[in-house]
Amino acid sequence: MKSILITGISGFVGGHYAQFLCDTRRDFTIHGVSRSRPTWDFVSHRDLIVDSIDIHQCDLLDTIAVNRVLKETQPDYILHLAAMSSVAESWITPLTSFLNNTNAFLNIVEAVRNQGLTSKILSVGSSEEYGIVQKSDLPLFENHTVSPQSPYAVARVSQEYLAQIYAKGYNLNICCTRSFNHIGPGQKDTFVISSISKQFANIAVNKKRPVINIGAGSIVRDFTDISDVILAYESIFENGLLGETYNVCSGKGNKICDIVNLFSEITDIPITIEQNTNLMRPIDNPILIGSYRKLHEHTGWTPLIPLNESLTKIFDYWCNKLSK
Amino acid sequence: MKSILITGISGFVGGHYAQFLCDTRRDFTIHGVSRSRPTWDFVSHRDLIVDSIDIHQCDLLDTIAVNRVLKETQPDYILHLAAMSSVAESWITPLTSFLNNTNAFLNIVEAVRNQGLTSKILSVGSSEEYGIVQKSDLPLFENHTVSPQSPYAVARVSQEYLAQIYAKGYNLNICCTRSFNHIGPGQKDTFVISSISKQFANIAVNKKRPVINIGAGSIVRDFTDISDVILAYESIFENGLLGETYNVCSGKGNKICDIVNLFSEITDIPITIEQNTNLMRPIDNPILIGSYRKLHEHTGWTPLIPLNESLTKIFDYWCNKLSK
Repeated sequence: MKSILITGISGFVGGHYAQFLCDTRRDFTIHGVSRSRPTWDFVSHRDLIVDSIDIHQCDLLDTIAVNRVLKETQPDYILHLAAMSSVAESWITPLTSFLNNTNAFLNIVEAVRNQGLTSKILSVGSSEEYGIVQKSDLPLFENHTVSPQSPYAVARVSQEYLAQIYAKGYNLNICCTRSFNHIGPGQKDTFVISSISKQFANIAVNKKRPVINIGAGSIVRDFTDISDVILAYESIFENGLLGETYNVCSGKGNKICDIVNLFSEITDIPITIEQNTNLMRPIDNPILIGSYRKLHEHTGWTPLIPLNESLTKIFDYWCNKLSK
Repeated sequence: MKSILITGISGFVGGHYAQFLCDTRRDFTIHGVSRSRPTWDFVSHRDLIVDSIDIHQCDLLDTIAVNRVLKETQPDYILHLAAMSSVAESWITPLTSFLNNTNAFLNIVEAVRNQGLTSKILSVGSSEEYGIVQKSDLPLFENHTVSPQSPYAVARVSQEYLAQIYAKGYNLNICCTRSFNHIGPGQKDTFVISSISKQFANIAVNKKRPVINIGAGSIVRDFTDISDVILAYESIFENGLLGETYNVCSGKGNKICDIVNLFSEITDIPITIEQNTNLMRPIDNPILIGSYRKLHEHTGWTPLIPLNESLTKIFDYWCNKLSK
């Protein structure tokens, strides 16, 4: 029986991944690292799924605790999702962001190295690592120079460099991603699509004023549905090559204000957009669009879910949540 | 009266910098961070110099202690030298290397940010950040892509990216260096030139067997005398531009085995070279030569001391030390 250790299992991606494993990989022992029992409100049969996971309480900044969990679990796979993945929050608490991204990851790979484990490790990084790019650089390929422009992005670049050293210097079986924005039910409303969707749901359900507050409406991002992201990670576990970094993305760019208008069409709610300078950042990337060619070539993965289908699911999630 | 805070003051560069300040900057209050009273054996009038420094005991990984020192000292300048700067050691203890390089620096800039200090900060980085380069890339300019190839190099790249964020995102007055190998009396014998020189001194003083043990003899590095390095850092404090990174180097490359032969000439000791695989690294950069054009253009700095003069001083230091 194969085993997987998922850090940050209580989070958005963790919940979706746990659901995926329970639905499709009955032969897997699932270990989850979390500070408490997961309370996902977006996972079907939640209690059944939580009961099938071996939950380990562990602060990933505590090296002794991390070593203990790895000694107990000796997983075949490690999916390291635990992170502080908000760019906006990282500007407010840069130290916390760095510790909970880079140092947490370092503790895990260091424990794997010290214990001589052969776990296949997926180190999740971010499209934010690319920084401010020119239109002529698009779509971004993995060999494009990184140029982090936020505390969060620095933490992710540092993590990826560490992953490369542990892969090439110590021969740990690590693959990295640069995951572009991913979206789906259950994502915190500090993330842009979730925030917009929640505002639409509040208009629909709570008859709030039809105004959508956003930060910089003109920035362009590449959004992938969480279900496609899960399949991408799964495909990297199966066929990703040691030490390689893979973009996980849709290959398409969308302006934030265009997405607001798409929500308006889908929900049939006319709105006005208000730009809120509090939601803007000291430095921001105007545009990020990736290419998933390398991931497709190495694993066959391709994104399947169109944006309007994702937005509909997210809107339904928020309407349901706000109606309770 | 201006004040400077020097972290890692007990170390090799710290001692030389303290001597420089005491010799030339009588109007400066010198605060030093160290775990203990400095015991430099390469500084003239050591006790006099130590007595003129306000020593603060502080573990730079302790955020509360770092905040306290900065609150007490409120320095005009911060020279952050405290580091674990051996590439070889970083392969043995990568976690310790990362914490004592990157996290220590992060604690300092975070304290400066939180307290709203206007200190001018010098963040010392390394030529190792460049990684493995092509001959056609030489000499290296600061706009050359970084590509760290050791745990130490990753820590330094992470530190530099953090410095950029704190400079551009939070407007802290930080300059960075990529310091190429520097050499001088008092450097630990885990560093290549000091190690070779100590072996020559052991042959001269203790009649040891005339064999010099080295790692990879064919690698090329760019060595700068510590006195020139001190003047470079001083020139950056005076004229370096906010957020800029400067190579500190001689612009010249020397093979390790050629330096052994130069030592042999200078000391008039015939030797044979033995290559010790224990001193070799999992991944190593074959060649690193920098350009100091940018630093010269911004500050007027230029290196002055020729290599054979540096080697003579280092050999004399070791002979003197081993004779005691």
